[in-house]
Amino acid sequence: MKALRVGICGLGTVAQGVFRVLQDNADIISRRAGREILISVVASRTPKPDVDLGGAVFSTDVFSIPAHPDVDVVVELIGGEDAALRIIESSIEQSKNVVTANKAVIALHGKKLFQSLSSKGLCIGFEGAVAGSVPIVMSLSEALAANEYDLIAGIINGTSNYILTAMAKEGRSFDEALRAAKKLGYAEADPTFDIEGIDAAHKLTILAAMAFDIGFHYEAINTEGISDITLADIKYARQLGYEIKHVGISRRTSDGIEIRVHPALIPLEHLMSRIDGSMNALLVHSNAAGDTLMAGPGAGELPTASAVVGDLIRIARGNISPINIDLGSPGRIVATENITSAYYLRIPSLDKAGVFARVATILSDYDISIEAAIQQEQIKPGKDDQDWVPIVILTHLVQEKLMIDAIRKVQDLPEVIGPITRIRVEQLDQ
Amino acid sequence: MKALRVGICGLGTVAQGVFRVLQDNADIISRRAGREILISVVASRTPKPDVDLGGAVFSTDVFSIPAHPDVDVVVELIGGEDAALRIIESSIEQSKNVVTANKAVIALHGKKLFQSLSSKGLCIGFEGAVAGSVPIVMSLSEALAANEYDLIAGIINGTSNYILTAMAKEGRSFDEALRAAKKLGYAEADPTFDIEGIDAAHKLTILAAMAFDIGFHYEAINTEGISDITLADIKYARQLGYEIKHVGISRRTSDGIEIRVHPALIPLEHLMSRIDGSMNALLVHSNAAGDTLMAGPGAGELPTASAVVGDLIRIARGNISPINIDLGSPGRIVATENITSAYYLRIPSLDKAGVFARVATILSDYDISIEAAIQQEQIKPGKDDQDWVPIVILTHLVQEKLMIDAIRKVQDLPEVIGPITRIRVEQLDQ
Repeated sequence: MKALRVGICGLGTVAQGVFRVLQDNADIISRRAGREILISVVASRTPKPDVDLGGAVFSTDVFSIPAHPDVDVVVELIGGEDAALRIIESSIEQSKNVVTANKAVIALHGKKLFQSLSSKGLCIGFEGAVAGSVPIVMSLSEALAANEYDLIAGIINGTSNYILTAMAKEGRSFDEALRAAKKLGYAEADPTFDIEGIDAAHKLTILAAMAFDIGFHYEAINTEGISDITLADIKYARQLGYEIKHVGISRRTSDGIEIRVHPALIPLEHLMSRIDGSMNALLVHSNAAGDTLMAGPGAGELPTASAVVGDLIRIARGNISPINIDLGSPGRIVATENITSAYYLRIPSLDKAGVFARVATILSDYDISIEAAIQQEQIKPGKDDQDWVPIVILTHLVQEKLMIDAIRKVQDLPEVIGPITRIRVEQLDQ
Repeated sequence: MKALRVGICGLGTVAQGVFRVLQDNADIISRRAGREILISVVASRTPKPDVDLGGAVFSTDVFSIPAHPDVDVVVELIGGEDAALRIIESSIEQSKNVVTANKAVIALHGKKLFQSLSSKGLCIGFEGAVAGSVPIVMSLSEALAANEYDLIAGIINGTSNYILTAMAKEGRSFDEALRAAKKLGYAEADPTFDIEGIDAAHKLTILAAMAFDIGFHYEAINTEGISDITLADIKYARQLGYEIKHVGISRRTSDGIEIRVHPALIPLEHLMSRIDGSMNALLVHSNAAGDTLMAGPGAGELPTASAVVGDLIRIARGNISPINIDLGSPGRIVATENITSAYYLRIPSLDKAGVFARVATILSDYDISIEAAIQQEQIKPGKDDQDWVPIVILTHLVQEKLMIDAIRKVQDLPEVIGPITRIRVEQLDQ
């Protein structure tokens, strides 16, 4: 059988990983793919780096790849949005299948892309776009496709998870942990995308579109990052039986589909609370298979290259049926204010008799019941040299808008001397 | 597009699950598959049970399904070996793709089956044969196929894991836990297949064939069950920082491929030690993707049906390229006696001065070094009313044949008053 000829756009970390994997594992890849997979052309806007490109021709015109006569399948690895979109669209025009590891372009232009792909009967491989080598895309589209999905929850940003793990296991502050993440290459110079949850929201947009047929609605995701999490919160959470993780959650409820990215308290008994460092993990709850958990490295040169080459192997084998995503269903996405969660609250307050009772009374006025509470004995000197103490409360389930109103009332109490911290509690059951 | 017409052989638990999943999730399955999946015929050697078969025709001749004109794809769910083999072979003769959840028939007849499938260009779906709905087959053959695999390790028998978990978490004895497993339907009336590791060895045979291209060599697996594990072992293991799990392990070493099923001490920090109850889990270590862990229900009506219908969806989508397994490679399987492991030893001995030293000296004579040891203070009345105490030792890595020789020597010490327990210790790293 003829070799599959691959044209790669981009020559950054992941693209170099693809070269390395295809070189190092050439024999087994040919056997599993049923034919050879060869990189015929590679293009990068920056000059050719000092990398062994094997027999591949180098070009600086990334837009020339889709129409190149020696290219059967296009691999888009330049990242970003506009140029990547242009490359993918031009590949579709050329009736060529595409592989990408670009979450942003799919999350933000998924509807348009899947419409053109489907009209041409082409496929796009994007296993590498979500959680690196963890096979979540293939699982949702094929292995678990017999199921109605109820819940997808995941740790889908390695940088945030690395930072939270370093805080929890090594007692580092957020800033120290972030510095360590940068030093190790887990965080970019500007880490906003990762620590504010934007990257995770891109990935969750894709997963929710696949699982719940609501289309691609990045703009509808309620996204919160981890920069406000303190060591104190991690310590109190642990005392209450939880670990704090940054999660993406999409869930089918009687009100519609929830889709949100935020820190959450996860029970210590749940495997998800044990996913540490830069690892990613995804939990899928579905009506026949029950709970499926998949964990692995969520990013990095070789894990992402593994996913990209996995997609190429599928294409080489002829397993190229498009993923069928219903783009037409009206997005029954639940408004954030209507989402129901349990909450962890940390309320810095003066150490006076009756404060806890006043807080509890306000919560009770909003029908919010308390599941557990910690009142610290340790008293810290507060502003104006008054003694203060954090009141820590776990609530039962409550609608977000009620929680926000109640917090506003509690915040107004004269004894509350600093901003209240509010973190959702997720049991991750359905 | 025309519906995919399915003929099912067997109408037991899993087959009924397939009916239920295809009925309950008909709409989403059609959408994801790109066409309808219909059960046209179902055959069972026992009379038709009181089950809603939808529009399917019922027959008592299971062997009539492959040649049936209304059947595009054959689903073999009768279990066992001979009749199942005949059905699969006859489907191949009819040039029909096959789906099965039968691990025994693939493990024991894999070579022959894959040769005929490959000569006809047909595919066999067997995701349901290994670890229920956990997508390990698809991961090894496609999602992770860009990798050279180094290690596959898994908890792949739900019955054994249920029993060990009940012992560890509820303090039940092996016999009590086995009774509970039978009561809950997790164990058969004759549980030999599960608790002696035969079922796990069938599954591992398949995984090792896929991962290491050594062919199907069930007969070469060193298989040990869990019936000798005691509560005391679980307690000592915990003290040493381990949980006892029943695992299947296949590993690439410089000596060749190891393939074995046995109880093992797994470090408490490893996620695999937290896989509880009837859950299954698989860890794959590979050269690009690093560690991938997948966990889920390993058996049961609906999870297995989920995997079977997942295979049907692939076939309906036209993703029918055969899985390429190299059957010709000489099996470089490491002989059991040459396998290197660390060991947990429990040595029941008289509570006399110098016994530990004598044991340590023997081990040292065999170049076996001790990593940790527990000498219990608690003294139990032994036979002849002598006081005795278990000596518990964790060794460093040692070749199995040396360990066996050393144990024989220790066993011969006059102070050793009962059979020595020996369990492997697995760090599950590569």
